[in-house]
Amino acid sequence: MTATTRVSQESLETFCVDALLKTGMREGDARIAVDVLVTTDLMGVFTHGTKNLQKYVRRLRAGGLDPKATPEVVKQGPSWAVIDGHAALAMVTACLAMKTAIAKAEATGVAYVGARNSGHFGAAGYYPLMAARADMIGLSMCNDVPSMTVPGARGHILGTNPLAIGIPAGQENPILLDIAMSTVAGSKVYQAISQGRPIPNTWIVDGDGLPTTDGSVYPHSASMLPMAGHKGYGIALFIEILSGLVSGACCRSEVGSWIFGDPSIPTGHGHAFVVINVGAIEPIERFKDRVDHMIREIRESPKAKGSERIFMPGEMEFGRMEQAKAQGIPLPSDVMESLFALAEELGLDASVLSGSKT
Amino acid sequence: MTATTRVSQESLETFCVDALLKTGMREGDARIAVDVLVTTDLMGVFTHGTKNLQKYVRRLRAGGLDPKATPEVVKQGPSWAVIDGHAALAMVTACLAMKTAIAKAEATGVAYVGARNSGHFGAAGYYPLMAARADMIGLSMCNDVPSMTVPGARGHILGTNPLAIGIPAGQENPILLDIAMSTVAGSKVYQAISQGRPIPNTWIVDGDGLPTTDGSVYPHSASMLPMAGHKGYGIALFIEILSGLVSGACCRSEVGSWIFGDPSIPTGHGHAFVVINVGAIEPIERFKDRVDHMIREIRESPKAKGSERIFMPGEMEFGRMEQAKAQGIPLPSDVMESLFALAEELGLDASVLSGSKT
Repeated sequence: MTATTRVSQESLETFCVDALLKTGMREGDARIAVDVLVTTDLMGVFTHGTKNLQKYVRRLRAGGLDPKATPEVVKQGPSWAVIDGHAALAMVTACLAMKTAIAKAEATGVAYVGARNSGHFGAAGYYPLMAARADMIGLSMCNDVPSMTVPGARGHILGTNPLAIGIPAGQENPILLDIAMSTVAGSKVYQAISQGRPIPNTWIVDGDGLPTTDGSVYPHSASMLPMAGHKGYGIALFIEILSGLVSGACCRSEVGSWIFGDPSIPTGHGHAFVVINVGAIEPIERFKDRVDHMIREIRESPKAKGSERIFMPGEMEFGRMEQAKAQGIPLPSDVMESLFALAEELGLDASVLSGSKT
Repeated sequence: MTATTRVSQESLETFCVDALLKTGMREGDARIAVDVLVTTDLMGVFTHGTKNLQKYVRRLRAGGLDPKATPEVVKQGPSWAVIDGHAALAMVTACLAMKTAIAKAEATGVAYVGARNSGHFGAAGYYPLMAARADMIGLSMCNDVPSMTVPGARGHILGTNPLAIGIPAGQENPILLDIAMSTVAGSKVYQAISQGRPIPNTWIVDGDGLPTTDGSVYPHSASMLPMAGHKGYGIALFIEILSGLVSGACCRSEVGSWIFGDPSIPTGHGHAFVVINVGAIEPIERFKDRVDHMIREIRESPKAKGSERIFMPGEMEFGRMEQAKAQGIPLPSDVMESLFALAEELGLDASVLSGSKT
């Protein structure tokens, strides 16, 4: 078990807002971005939460992200819009895009909103939840610098291009899926290496484009494998096109790395958001009753031998969120280290983060 | 190699239209449905083409499908519509739905059209191609009788719920993805059984819900596994909700089996179609140039050791179609047997199908 420190939601928010204010961001924008990151930590998805704030702040200070930028709708129609992020911190751009999509879907039933000149937007799952809480079905997608191969190739062809989907329910929590198109995240490979374990041969390919169980070739001469082979390849292409080409954003190798790239140069990521206003189409109470019914039927289905529960997508995350709101967020040591390092870089007081160690 | 018979597109169409006319269908509807089935055979997807006409005809004659039904738009808004198939042959309903979605997207930029009281609509990939040929991005989805398990469960929880996506290109063929949410199709399990081969343990689970390499338990006590585990499960749920719940159609076990169910009882499948009118959002020539550029860059990427080509989704199918249009469709023996049996059931002359055997 890794040591964790329980920090209250409020303390973590205060620290992160203060950090972003130090870069010159407006308080409203800082609060929007911090809600994305802290909600992600509340759900226990620590790879995509406040751990990355240090990297975002470095870009905000180096010029690759513009703390003063105001994302704007640059073109629109009845059921669509395109937003230029102007290199703002991507959560600000993405929240505006999802809000715009919800408003368009409110008016016409369905909407697409694309975003260009953006960056890494954190966990894709935050945005569909905005739609689900407005009783709508929401999708979010993002392209990224290529790190994944495709069938028949070697080397990096596509990003691991995340897809998130949120579905409103009635009494139950929303259904919330948040997945990348690679078989697994790179962090799983690192974990196996550090534990000296071989990896399944469906995770990565080596420099020859051949499957390998030797994780140590990652990342220098390896590429991620798409989930389910040609199926994940096809969906990743679709996400690339909706995020990068329909929006007029950068695409594939045009996208910069938000981790390894020069922090003074914008990465140019594109996003796509799709919203379906269910209540315009089907009586919303009937719909939500049927979703609840389906969730309960699946949950109560016979279990596989050795299995005790069947989870809905997002159910574990909502469970962790409830607990973290009550008891504090159990931040792993790597997150704490990153936040303390950030505090030092910015000359910020980190004592607000001194939670209870477990 | 299985023996094949090369039958011209025109001969196959003539035979199939005649068969449907015998059930009392209007000629226009028959031609719509036959174009779906024959296009599928042209693409070499023989499991979903005219092989199934016999089953559809049995339902049309037994009452589970209504040859005289006229699918209709029962409700609509600016960017959406719901179509009641009234138990028409599902290709007729699905083509109307996709045409409606294209028209709505033409007007507002994006559209969702759901269909209820429908049935098995053949290959999902036909419909997005209608959108791609109108320079739009199209998606089609369908729910089905449960035959797939989900993580933690045993038994049938969800259908294998197909998803197809079509993307218009410029000089290149459209990108066309057509996939089910199971790891593989049931036909692959049967093939392995007949060849006495074990199967990978990612294809099915046994009656305890545990992965097995013994294909012989399928289908009586086995369930399909979703592709990529929880990822395929989540996307299958999304497809179920868009096809079954937003459209007001049957859902999960409410859906009947079009193969094993009583042919006099409608199956109640639901479909979902989503269309994005790219040209409303981004200059269409610029978009198509960028798609072409991406296709060519991927195709020309370094190959994996032992690989000679990198295929786009749909590229193999378009290649087969071109060849089949020129040389006749190489119908496998099981398709021919099914067509001959149908001819006998209907008292139809099958001599039009006597192509050249290879």
